[in-house]
Amino acid sequence: MRTELRVTGFGGQGIILAGYIIGKAAAVYDGKHATMVQAYGPEARGSATSAQVIVDTERVLYPYIRRMDVLLAMSQEGYDKFAPLVEKDGFLLYDEDLADFEERPPVKVFEGVPATRYAEELGRVMVANIVMLGFFTAQTGLISAEAMKKAILSAVPKGTGDLNMKAFEKGFQHQPAGLTVGAGA
Amino acid sequence: MRTELRVTGFGGQGIILAGYIIGKAAAVYDGKHATMVQAYGPEARGSATSAQVIVDTERVLYPYIRRMDVLLAMSQEGYDKFAPLVEKDGFLLYDEDLADFEERPPVKVFEGVPATRYAEELGRVMVANIVMLGFFTAQTGLISAEAMKKAILSAVPKGTGDLNMKAFEKGFQHQPAGLTVGAGA
Repeated sequence: MRTELRVTGFGGQGIILAGYIIGKAAAVYDGKHATMVQAYGPEARGSATSAQVIVDTERVLYPYIRRMDVLLAMSQEGYDKFAPLVEKDGFLLYDEDLADFEERPPVKVFEGVPATRYAEELGRVMVANIVMLGFFTAQTGLISAEAMKKAILSAVPKGTGDLNMKAFEKGFQHQPAGLTVGAGA
Repeated sequence: MRTELRVTGFGGQGIILAGYIIGKAAAVYDGKHATMVQAYGPEARGSATSAQVIVDTERVLYPYIRRMDVLLAMSQEGYDKFAPLVEKDGFLLYDEDLADFEERPPVKVFEGVPATRYAEELGRVMVANIVMLGFFTAQTGLISAEAMKKAILSAVPKGTGDLNMKAFEKGFQHQPAGLTVGAGA
């Protein structure tokens, strides 16, 4: 059983850290295997950043994703580029203040969260990535909340644990307005 | 022309961020190709963390490292595990306050820097990874200082640029005490 994910956004949002945390939660605290890859190329010029994460019950031999079961989008550019590629039975989660859409892709779960706004309300815009991880955890159920919280605490700077747990809860508790199942807008 | 690197340490030191920055400097600002992989496995239990980075003039098709041209070690555990595997014409750079050694591996360049101590002197232990990157840049010459500084500034939180540039300079200017070429202790 294998799940392939992409986290996308721009520099400084902690996109790679978010990918790292998902992999760590899955592998270290949920007993699965995981990899995270950052592939840079000509397209990496500019501020776009994205992390590829694979979570598998088996060992991951090839860490590049070949399909997209889950997309976490924290920028318009990342949304525009990758949203059309999400599998039909996949999950598309996005920061609704940072990404808008012309056409809604026909995916199973398509949900927005005001991750950056919630982070600002907590006083630190830097934790928007952790809000997003809380939202991801609640909406997909792919990784246990317990594992995600442990992975977050192990990865964020000392002294910021409480703040990051609040950020996680904000995302976890968020009730999205949209439908959760359906094809097209 | 391909260089394979590993950055190793423990959780919270910014090991993955350091790997990400090396790849970004090479790919985005030095015009090469690069990948960064975090492979989690049973050995990831505990606090050990390591990032694999490949810098190549060609596109990187397989992002796992198969040899180790460069090791940046920021923990004893990482040092013990990976130092013996560095290529003989490779570079082994380590935080001399965090890693000690029984036997010096027969590598071309083997140098310590008090990265964590320098970071503490700057008032933020968190920037030890950036001190290490400055040291890496000066000692290996693999990536231009200009590219590394741009990549650091693009990856660290807003408002911490000056601090991180100071950390980079600390590592860059550090004159290691050891010999730079030689086999065995």
